[in-house]
Amino acid sequence: MDATLAAALKRAATDVEAALNDLLPAADGAEARVIQAMRYSALGGGKRLRAFLVMEGASMFGVDRRCAARVGAAVEMLHAYSLIHDDLPAMDNDDLRRGKPSCHKAFDEATAILAGDALQTQAFEVLAAPDTHSNSEARCELVLALALASGAHGMVGGQEIDMVSEGKTLTAEQITRLNALKTGRLIQFSAEAGAILGRAPTSQRALLGAYGRDLGAAFQIADDLLDATGTDAEIGKTAGKDAAAGKATLVAVLGVERARAQAAALAHQAAATLESFGAKAGLLRALVEYVVTRKK
Amino acid sequence: MDATLAAALKRAATDVEAALNDLLPAADGAEARVIQAMRYSALGGGKRLRAFLVMEGASMFGVDRRCAARVGAAVEMLHAYSLIHDDLPAMDNDDLRRGKPSCHKAFDEATAILAGDALQTQAFEVLAAPDTHSNSEARCELVLALALASGAHGMVGGQEIDMVSEGKTLTAEQITRLNALKTGRLIQFSAEAGAILGRAPTSQRALLGAYGRDLGAAFQIADDLLDATGTDAEIGKTAGKDAAAGKATLVAVLGVERARAQAAALAHQAAATLESFGAKAGLLRALVEYVVTRKK
Repeated sequence: MDATLAAALKRAATDVEAALNDLLPAADGAEARVIQAMRYSALGGGKRLRAFLVMEGASMFGVDRRCAARVGAAVEMLHAYSLIHDDLPAMDNDDLRRGKPSCHKAFDEATAILAGDALQTQAFEVLAAPDTHSNSEARCELVLALALASGAHGMVGGQEIDMVSEGKTLTAEQITRLNALKTGRLIQFSAEAGAILGRAPTSQRALLGAYGRDLGAAFQIADDLLDATGTDAEIGKTAGKDAAAGKATLVAVLGVERARAQAAALAHQAAATLESFGAKAGLLRALVEYVVTRKK
Repeated sequence: MDATLAAALKRAATDVEAALNDLLPAADGAEARVIQAMRYSALGGGKRLRAFLVMEGASMFGVDRRCAARVGAAVEMLHAYSLIHDDLPAMDNDDLRRGKPSCHKAFDEATAILAGDALQTQAFEVLAAPDTHSNSEARCELVLALALASGAHGMVGGQEIDMVSEGKTLTAEQITRLNALKTGRLIQFSAEAGAILGRAPTSQRALLGAYGRDLGAAFQIADDLLDATGTDAEIGKTAGKDAAAGKATLVAVLGVERARAQAAALAHQAAATLESFGAKAGLLRALVEYVVTRKK
């Protein structure tokens, strides 16, 4: 990976981790267990790709870094909630997440459901709070955009499609829509959030949104390719899980070569979308390259 | 019940039902099932007490009724999400809700988890949307207040305490705190929301908040009394469930007579809090009387 990009990813991860730690202080009361579960799942892990997108986008518009870190933390809370609920026995029934017991294994199922619920709530709390932006119009836009990205017509809708599609054969078009909803919309929001924070013109926000959409689609194909072609040791988790579960992926439908070509085309398009931003968008363009070439 | 109050409750329920129906249109895509589950749980049922509080509070400040109905709908979405998740097998494991199969029985567990998730998301979406209020400051305050009322330090925290307390003996003080978090905070928010919509002075918002806090506490004791002393036919659901489940209620700890006296004292205090609003708060005061004397 490009050394400048690596350093920027690491810096964003550090900053968002600190913001999450501040926003989720350990608690004392009888409800301490659910807060412990929220900390368990939201802190200390993940690539923080979404937070990086927020912070790098925000830096293009000169947004205060602490404000951007709060929005990055909100997106990571939303993402953590979705992973906790996805891992539940009634959903994907996954015992492991990032090499650790998943939340319902480390705690219990009721606490995991509630920890996910409260992480979602807190994401919106953070976005609406005055500390996130001095302009309430911007804060409302953030709340609205995150809600649209993650609700029934976004992430949750994608998860539902994933559930009802189990054991069914999907077309490439259907899988593309599933991925766009399930993972794409939140990545798109993350890419747009900096423009919202920076009160950028709608046209610039739209460019970042288009970049995020293509980046998200490329990211998902790359993820499926790793699962299909990597070994456990290479990717740091169980490989071949998708095929074993009969999961609908573009790799399964198009084959490895065509899927790889599609990811490359999407990556190229995502980078090209940001051309008008010039050097300021250099790291976001480098990220695209990383996403489709990463080995884990 | 006071005839004017009965008519006002019915009118608020009709208006909020219409708002919910508009906000949750049936969908076509592969994700239709989760939206169907959201409609199933959010529409057609309940006393709509929370929505009534929002709308009656809003009318005191001359707020547009359609705006108030949107906030009422948001609160009812939040409430519906909490009931869906509470009923799940890992939580209270309830097969029935308002005489119908609970959401995970009518659909499936994964869809119920997701429907609850998306109802929460949409509650915040509605509050942040420009149609709810022309002033974005007011919309942010609504989002923030609802999030604080329903997150880990509010409703979800109360639910967690309820879960970890199973089989334990709680003191009256602990039960009071549990109730305040689990059901009180959302009722308090509902009572305050009209003042937020009406851009009322902080002192007036605080009075409505104090009213909501006491009303919520009285409401919970009244509910527990109905469970302890009513018959199935009278209350329209299984009576004696709390005692059978060894559930910590003030009725169990204080006994029926002392619990009844406490509910009456809270109701009196709630009504007195609104004295300075004069006749404008007549229905909110009448509601207090209804809440502690209702038979189901």
